Amino acid sequence: MAVRAAVAGASGYAGGEVLRLLLGHPSMEIGALTGNANAGQPLGALQPQLLPLADRVLEPTSAGVLAGHDVVFLALPHGQSAAVAEQLGDGVLIVDCGADFRLGSAAEWERYYGSPHAGTWPYGLPELPGAREALAGTRRVAVPGCYPTAVTLALFPAYAAGLVEPEAVIVAASGTSGAGRSLKPHLLGSEVMGSLSPYGVGGVHRHTPEMAQNLSAVAGERVTISFTPTLAPMPRGILATCSARARPGVTAATVRETYAKALAGEPFVRLLPEGRWPTTAAVVGSNAALVQVALDEAAGRVIAISAIDNLTKGTAGGAVQSMNIALGLAEDLGLSTIGVAP
Amino acid sequence: MAVRAAVAGASGYAGGEVLRLLLGHPSMEIGALTGNANAGQPLGALQPQLLPLADRVLEPTSAGVLAGHDVVFLALPHGQSAAVAEQLGDGVLIVDCGADFRLGSAAEWERYYGSPHAGTWPYGLPELPGAREALAGTRRVAVPGCYPTAVTLALFPAYAAGLVEPEAVIVAASGTSGAGRSLKPHLLGSEVMGSLSPYGVGGVHRHTPEMAQNLSAVAGERVTISFTPTLAPMPRGILATCSARARPGVTAATVRETYAKALAGEPFVRLLPEGRWPTTAAVVGSNAALVQVALDEAAGRVIAISAIDNLTKGTAGGAVQSMNIALGLAEDLGLSTIGVAP
Amino acid sequence: MAVRAAVAGASGYAGGEVLRLLLGHPSMEIGALTGNANAGQPLGALQPQLLPLADRVLEPTSAGVLAGHDVVFLALPHGQSAAVAEQLGDGVLIVDCGADFRLGSAAEWERYYGSPHAGTWPYGLPELPGAREALAGTRRVAVPGCYPTAVTLALFPAYAAGLVEPEAVIVAASGTSGAGRSLKPHLLGSEVMGSLSPYGVGGVHRHTPEMAQNLSAVAGERVTISFTPTLAPMPRGILATCSARARPGVTAATVRETYAKALAGEPFVRLLPEGRWPTTAAVVGSNAALVQVALDEAAGRVIAISAIDNLTKGTAGGAVQSMNIALGLAEDLGLSTIGVAP
Amino acid sequence: MAVRAAVAGASGYAGGEVLRLLLGHPSMEIGALTGNANAGQPLGALQPQLLPLADRVLEPTSAGVLAGHDVVFLALPHGQSAAVAEQLGDGVLIVDCGADFRLGSAAEWERYYGSPHAGTWPYGLPELPGAREALAGTRRVAVPGCYPTAVTLALFPAYAAGLVEPEAVIVAASGTSGAGRSLKPHLLGSEVMGSLSPYGVGGVHRHTPEMAQNLSAVAGERVTISFTPTLAPMPRGILATCSARARPGVTAATVRETYAKALAGEPFVRLLPEGRWPTTAAVVGSNAALVQVALDEAAGRVIAISAIDNLTKGTAGGAVQSMNIALGLAEDLGLSTIGVAP
Repeated sequence: MAVRAAVAGASGYAGGEVLRLLLGHPSMEIGALTGNANAGQPLGALQPQLLPLADRVLEPTSAGVLAGHDVVFLALPHGQSAAVAEQLGDGVLIVDCGADFRLGSAAEWERYYGSPHAGTWPYGLPELPGAREALAGTRRVAVPGCYPTAVTLALFPAYAAGLVEPEAVIVAASGTSGAGRSLKPHLLGSEVMGSLSPYGVGGVHRHTPEMAQNLSAVAGERVTISFTPTLAPMPRGILATCSARARPGVTAATVRETYAKALAGEPFVRLLPEGRWPTTAAVVGSNAALVQVALDEAAGRVIAISAIDNLTKGTAGGAVQSMNIALGLAEDLGLSTIGVAP
Repeated sequence: MAVRAAVAGASGYAGGEVLRLLLGHPSMEIGALTGNANAGQPLGALQPQLLPLADRVLEPTSAGVLAGHDVVFLALPHGQSAAVAEQLGDGVLIVDCGADFRLGSAAEWERYYGSPHAGTWPYGLPELPGAREALAGTRRVAVPGCYPTAVTLALFPAYAAGLVEPEAVIVAASGTSGAGRSLKPHLLGSEVMGSLSPYGVGGVHRHTPEMAQNLSAVAGERVTISFTPTLAPMPRGILATCSARARPGVTAATVRETYAKALAGEPFVRLLPEGRWPTTAAVVGSNAALVQVALDEAAGRVIAISAIDNLTKGTAGGAVQSMNIALGLAEDLGLSTIGVAP
Repeated sequence: MAVRAAVAGASGYAGGEVLRLLLGHPSMEIGALTGNANAGQPLGALQPQLLPLADRVLEPTSAGVLAGHDVVFLALPHGQSAAVAEQLGDGVLIVDCGADFRLGSAAEWERYYGSPHAGTWPYGLPELPGAREALAGTRRVAVPGCYPTAVTLALFPAYAAGLVEPEAVIVAASGTSGAGRSLKPHLLGSEVMGSLSPYGVGGVHRHTPEMAQNLSAVAGERVTISFTPTLAPMPRGILATCSARARPGVTAATVRETYAKALAGEPFVRLLPEGRWPTTAAVVGSNAALVQVALDEAAGRVIAISAIDNLTKGTAGGAVQSMNIALGLAEDLGLSTIGVAP
Repeated sequence: MAVRAAVAGASGYAGGEVLRLLLGHPSMEIGALTGNANAGQPLGALQPQLLPLADRVLEPTSAGVLAGHDVVFLALPHGQSAAVAEQLGDGVLIVDCGADFRLGSAAEWERYYGSPHAGTWPYGLPELPGAREALAGTRRVAVPGCYPTAVTLALFPAYAAGLVEPEAVIVAASGTSGAGRSLKPHLLGSEVMGSLSPYGVGGVHRHTPEMAQNLSAVAGERVTISFTPTLAPMPRGILATCSARARPGVTAATVRETYAKALAGEPFVRLLPEGRWPTTAAVVGSNAALVQVALDEAAGRVIAISAIDNLTKGTAGGAVQSMNIALGLAEDLGLSTIGVAP
């Protein structure tokens, strides 16, 4: 019997990607689709790539419309999820692609988001130690941010094994879909093409405390993050270049073995063979995270690089993967490790 | 029981896309993968987006390696298919993504390709009148060229119904993967990005006689083609802008009804609602062809525009669709109308 | 003594390009810069590429601010130029980058623009027969549209010499800066990159009557235009693919000689040697128009292709070139035929 | 009287950019143009953007052809400059865009380049302390690498003032022209567009010791560099994200004042106002380097970011700037701080 899903925020990029994945998921049936500014429009006018849903009409986002489904995906602006969740009640699985329930620390939340903390839900990064157990059977999932997904997958093996010091330096570039579909001057195609532009420099990006939270948890000590995000001239993809000072005695062989062991068996994270490096093109539309790691002996640093599709593994794929676990389905249902390239 | 397929030319863009689709096809099993210059290399070094096949090693292309499969996809340079086909014999289904067997006229073949004509195989554009019948049960398929696929789907309804005069003017732009993976200076990223460049201008492009063949067949008279291809700064996609002088008495309503009727029921061709136009982004990775049509009354011309993914519907998707028909499988197995966008 | 110029609409793409050219013009001094929505902002926040003007502050657009200059460039939305011009009076040279004064026919204006016709000013395409004479000493210039510039330069030699029939079929693709800097969903980078999208199909684009006006004038008969514009994934550039049925007896040699003769001596239009085709990359930032022409004997059509930078020769470069003529300066002052490539 | 310049390697991207700048330089005359593989071809077939030189024919690179000029620009593969320089003798100014004479340490050269050290020439980064003095009147210039230019300009103020510890972490992304015009599979447009790809990870990129050399010199102690380069989907531009641990007591105000003072008066380096960050689009075709800096107090690091055009300030612009100094011309002749954007 099909699991019935609603998607709130179906006109945005995250919502569209959730729908793309649900269309290919053998156990799912797509129910209500909502969007506030675009309510009343057919999806074909907004997500022309989703032909099978072209004639479906968006409804306004409300608990009434979203009720009566087994799963509700929320792809809403920050701050709106709590109210919806409360109205929907405990019987429904809510998978929140927004930030509201990601951080455990109310203080950090308030510092970075400037609003009251809504709470904390099980965190939808199954690859983290203990995460699958927390997700199994849950009715609430906080899908990680796209940058934290890329960065955590690149660095958690190093921190779990104590290979590096607790100060990580991260420079990550994202395709423009990571900034969403809102109309902002710097997101115009004429501005974006041919340009790399940093933003949120100096530790102010909201994904910073989320990365610190994840890595601190596996490290067992507080990890400090220096994070610089960049907008890159491509629609999809994140390349995260992460490094930290190697602890004394760490060798290239140790690093490689540690990563190989930590990532072994993960269905969606792949440590590449030596000599190959992740590229974002290889994961477009795929739920895979490609990881490679090196020890720079002269600089004394471990360099870990990951590539994901920000909309797939970084948002909607992570959401579906977590949903599968929460519902007791096979974790990889509806997801693939095959990218659309070139 | 799975159908076992081999792919010759697995290191190129067409071969890679065939593999991407076969990996998602529920009835297929992937056998030998070959590639001459890259024989001995793991596929992961060449097609990093195909993670499930990363450890498969390319073998040299030979009849011996390709023998023993139910289906053999050929993604080889022009002129090499006939010899392979002869050696493989009649028992195997051969789906040729190359040009060798597309043209019925030996004279046209020799004029455009400068080599002896190898023959003619059933043409893998199921949407053409009579094509499905010719493909059913066949052991040989000539997959259409990417431009002829886009152009034929845009114009055949007009010619089948006699709406337009037999002189079509076509300007089509393709993503760079249409030019293949060979190392040519004008295909370098530095040259391609930010640039539109025409090529094969003045009627010399090899896809010209193929378009004329298709449209003449449905028109029942000789259709002349003026075709100008352009390389566009994107990896995938073809946008074909086609027009022809409207015959007297043709109205916008007639045009629309004709197209709606001609394309009704086609699983992979969609006439868009009025007011929406095809974009290549909407079909990336999808086997869909989006079509729209208008009558420009002042200029007296019917304008038909189509968008396809040159590697999917334009090559590998068309190949798999034809294979499905040839093998008596459901025509849409392993294929979708869902694009990866944005 | 320097000529003092003001630019109204300095925060947009056309205005920015006018400023880029004026900064390199040896006879010009840059006076007031205006912009309504952005008044009060430093130009460095809006046009960061114009470092020498980074600290200049935008003023609100008004006749008072624009008065007292020798030249005023208007880069305003359609419909606003007439009022400004009237207030500034006859003593100042006004170069209007907008459409208001381009069309001679009030009926055509009203059909395509839906507002009352403001009048007709000397047309800033010096390469047209008689244009330089009309521009010399004028106090009013209507800068041509970007598409009409590209198309007219590609086709006027054929029409002036009567080589082709009076029905032209034009498919042109433009970089996104041609759509301006306004916030529209389809102009977002995520939508534009990797996509070709037609718009204004079926004869409805406002540049259509302008092309017809130009080509009809040189042909001495009414020329019908079928025009399809396309948005291409690049910031700058127009590639115009134009064709028309060749008149009987026209040969490839005639075509070539006609074009060579018509374009000889033009400082900014270059007929390429046989075998080379225009690319938009070659004219980025340049005021050059590259032209190539061929006779497709099988299709019976002359194919003429041009490439320009829509912001330079297509807007601001054409404006400066016309200003030079109007002021009696050397026509190429401040302009070059050197592109920024790759 | 004009200074006569020859360019060896005129068919490549660096050579083409040198020519673009020389064409706009009021004191220069362009003499011999050479290129080995392309000798005999007109420049118009190779550098179509340089219309004024379209009919110039490339000669083979040899001392005989290059002799008799006042300045010779070498844009040759590594290892070829020494022989040419020796043959040309001491009377001519040689500006080497290659790496051969950049490093002072023979041991570092041999470790990274694997060939014997050719020597050390005055280093063409005028902004470094003492560099202008060393360049004045010289007959030999080693033009810096593109990444070292971007990184040194971003970090030297911090190291000169002792603001940070001697371990810098640098992640820089470059447009594809930085990889040159050679035919390599990963440089194909189909591979590059839509993708970010790291390379030379782990301290092995050849520009690493050059950065260390520059920063160590200004720091007065050995600076260790962790450098990760990335190929970005754009033709031009480098964005360098650099950071180092702040020394105790360093404040945001100190950092800003230090940078403002260090960069004051530099004609081509601009510290942006607070709140604005460098983008590569703003410097396309410009010789400017945009710099911004921040103190991340939580992470305890100074973050400095620079954007340059890798072909202009990163190669040919730096070369011309150094030539101007060497010849006693105004340093900014033929160079501008105006980019071509959008």
